[in-house]
Amino acid sequence: MPKDIIQQLDCIFKPKSIAVIGASNAPGKWGHRMVNNPLNTGYRGAIYPVNPTEKTVLGLPAYASVKDIPGAVDMAVMVAPAQYVPQAMRDCAAKGIKGVVMITAGFAEVGAEGKKLQDEVVQIARQGGIRFVGPNGMGMFSSAADLSLSFDVAPRKGKIAFISQSGTFGGMLASMANAKGYGLSKFVSIGNQADLTAGDYLEYLAEDPDTGAIVFYMEGFKDGRRFFETARQVVKQKPIIVYKSGRTEAATRATMSHTSSIAGSDVVFEAMCKQAGIIRSYETGQMFDMAEALVSMPLPKGNRVAIIGSGGQGVTISDNCELLGLKVPEFDEATKLELKKSLPSHAPVPSNPVDFAGGTRTADDEAKVADALAQIPYIDAVITNMPSYRGWGGNAAAARASIEGAELVAAIPKKYGKPVITLRWRGPTGDIAQDIVRAAHIPAYDTPEQVARAMYALATYARIREERNGG
Amino acid sequence: MPKDIIQQLDCIFKPKSIAVIGASNAPGKWGHRMVNNPLNTGYRGAIYPVNPTEKTVLGLPAYASVKDIPGAVDMAVMVAPAQYVPQAMRDCAAKGIKGVVMITAGFAEVGAEGKKLQDEVVQIARQGGIRFVGPNGMGMFSSAADLSLSFDVAPRKGKIAFISQSGTFGGMLASMANAKGYGLSKFVSIGNQADLTAGDYLEYLAEDPDTGAIVFYMEGFKDGRRFFETARQVVKQKPIIVYKSGRTEAATRATMSHTSSIAGSDVVFEAMCKQAGIIRSYETGQMFDMAEALVSMPLPKGNRVAIIGSGGQGVTISDNCELLGLKVPEFDEATKLELKKSLPSHAPVPSNPVDFAGGTRTADDEAKVADALAQIPYIDAVITNMPSYRGWGGNAAAARASIEGAELVAAIPKKYGKPVITLRWRGPTGDIAQDIVRAAHIPAYDTPEQVARAMYALATYARIREERNGG
Repeated sequence: MPKDIIQQLDCIFKPKSIAVIGASNAPGKWGHRMVNNPLNTGYRGAIYPVNPTEKTVLGLPAYASVKDIPGAVDMAVMVAPAQYVPQAMRDCAAKGIKGVVMITAGFAEVGAEGKKLQDEVVQIARQGGIRFVGPNGMGMFSSAADLSLSFDVAPRKGKIAFISQSGTFGGMLASMANAKGYGLSKFVSIGNQADLTAGDYLEYLAEDPDTGAIVFYMEGFKDGRRFFETARQVVKQKPIIVYKSGRTEAATRATMSHTSSIAGSDVVFEAMCKQAGIIRSYETGQMFDMAEALVSMPLPKGNRVAIIGSGGQGVTISDNCELLGLKVPEFDEATKLELKKSLPSHAPVPSNPVDFAGGTRTADDEAKVADALAQIPYIDAVITNMPSYRGWGGNAAAARASIEGAELVAAIPKKYGKPVITLRWRGPTGDIAQDIVRAAHIPAYDTPEQVARAMYALATYARIREERNGG
Repeated sequence: MPKDIIQQLDCIFKPKSIAVIGASNAPGKWGHRMVNNPLNTGYRGAIYPVNPTEKTVLGLPAYASVKDIPGAVDMAVMVAPAQYVPQAMRDCAAKGIKGVVMITAGFAEVGAEGKKLQDEVVQIARQGGIRFVGPNGMGMFSSAADLSLSFDVAPRKGKIAFISQSGTFGGMLASMANAKGYGLSKFVSIGNQADLTAGDYLEYLAEDPDTGAIVFYMEGFKDGRRFFETARQVVKQKPIIVYKSGRTEAATRATMSHTSSIAGSDVVFEAMCKQAGIIRSYETGQMFDMAEALVSMPLPKGNRVAIIGSGGQGVTISDNCELLGLKVPEFDEATKLELKKSLPSHAPVPSNPVDFAGGTRTADDEAKVADALAQIPYIDAVITNMPSYRGWGGNAAAARASIEGAELVAAIPKKYGKPVITLRWRGPTGDIAQDIVRAAHIPAYDTPEQVARAMYALATYARIREERNGG
């Protein structure tokens, strides 16, 4: 990987100081948000608002030009109207600014005139040694700098990097991931990709120590060849997940006007993903469900899954696993006899999926079975319930057992080097077991479909990584 | 439809008094829950605990047998151990009880011995004129009686009936639907279906005025022929949605031990659904997402959808709609010119999906476009954002516009007889617009996939209904 992209993008993702060109005191304006968000979401570097007519913006001294700023500036956020951007970029170059996040719209996406202006800006940037995000984007978030331009409320920190070709929608998807409890290392709304393209971000994130999985929402590729060639290398170390929209006629029509990129044939895209070792996501939410498992779990040695889940839950998870090509192997007789001891007397002879037939004797029964399943040589991964039980009526023993069960499940990955994934139970549990399991970074999902999809991602990436690293 | 099934099941779903046979003072026991849940979730009828060794259960006078209860008893909840059930059923018959919800396990699902016991219980019930739910189930909920046996917290009331072959998992699915804001009219965990089968519940619900859509989680059918023949008739008035698990090998293995039913070939099942006019759900959550739209929206005249959604959102919803066979037709030139007036100046010429290019001028802009789209003769349905905007910085005009936008969207179904479906926005909106739209029963979903699936259900059921009612 080229080292200069790291230095270049570090200016953008780890700036010690930022200028906001087009800063504004008017709530609702981007120039207001771009000062307000960093102020409110933990950014500790210097913020220099740039506005030729204001003395201060949100209480901070404002400057007529970046050139007037006394200190050094690592990165500039550009929210000035499009026609002022060429001059502002020249000023940035003069000031020695090396990175810009360009929010401003009105470039290639609006037609030939805008495209011309965009090309001019690119040329100024090249001459001035500036790399820039956008234009026509919604900014970025970087956990390394505690810098959130895109979000009014700082997202949860984590190891998932999310690169989105759509700004508003990308932000919405990131919020949904946040609501599910997943954490981000980076978010970038890449806009028109006039300078930095998907392939550049990919190169940078491959080396980013904060990032464990790289997730893309894409509509079309500007640098397809380079992107897929880079991906081919990156997947040796980190998983890449791509959701691509523009699979149908109306969507393609919309994509062309949206980011002026052409949505290629879906069949071609599918083949390119396979070849590159990219995991494809077929639903928007799946991107993050899969990434969450990939950043937190050891990879399985194979695709053989043991499942715990009463009745319909086990049936439905098994269905979904097998439909995704995972194996749910039947247990041998010795294992069945051993497992029977941990099941309630009315439960049938254990089979895979393991059915507790409507009840456990104590709250850690399932966890003990999960631990036992993880020890079976022909089982590569375990799916189980979140070991949280209410202990009706304030039963202390039940509450204690549920904590012990949680500890047991949480320990599985380190103890046996095998992944474990849990299905979260809804309802008024208010159970600390859930927190214990989550604190150990055991992924927890709401639906059987998500659980199976996450396990599929682990098994698929394990295979990709083995193949790419020469078995 | 036979009238006697209505009378029979009314005893179970609208009982004025219930006995709980096997009632217990021990928290954690089913005998405790079955008294505690009705007490805590709004049931206003009489509750008679039956327990030969207790004087009171949860403060209520207990009786040694149902025969000792002074007043009339409409329905009995059976939680006594399996071996006592035959005698308890004889007592019920003697008392003149006509309906039983049998929670007790240890019947056909545990083997030949249990099957024999189950057959005996069925015979006693037949002789005594008793119809019963279960055994080996998790009870029921009926909004008509404010009676919740299955849930510790009464679910939201609504027009969706949910019949589940899996008890614990069915309860979990119902809780998930509840968390999404959907309301239930009935929930039944049908267990082994020793007496009442899926087809019986279907017949009853077809005539139930509280039920607008009937949802099934099934693993296999005991009365397949009757179920599908009944469904064929019912779909003329009400939509039926079925999720069936047991599509793969491991799942089938689990199903056989779970409710002793045999999962048939998935291809056969698919064909039977098509023939009967049943809408099939391929994910557990989809059942309720589809039902929610069906109970609240008028049916579209066709499958042509207009979509509002900035950038990636519109693209992704279009993709999902077209992948499900819906049409997203391009607008004619006159419409485009008219719509252009409602869009920000930097937005491209409107196309379907309509892209606001990153911003609206006022919060009701999108709502006005939604209203305009609903008036187009070749558009059958509209998908739009929830018209909720934060109005940064306490902007009163923005807040007011968002309320007016919400009213406009909420009025579309009645004004034009066309359905409208919204995509909910996450984040710190705290917006009353959302409540206004929801109060008008406009469905709101979290993901583009859900939105498209809900619209698919409306268009599909509109077609089924038209075909079945002779065009």
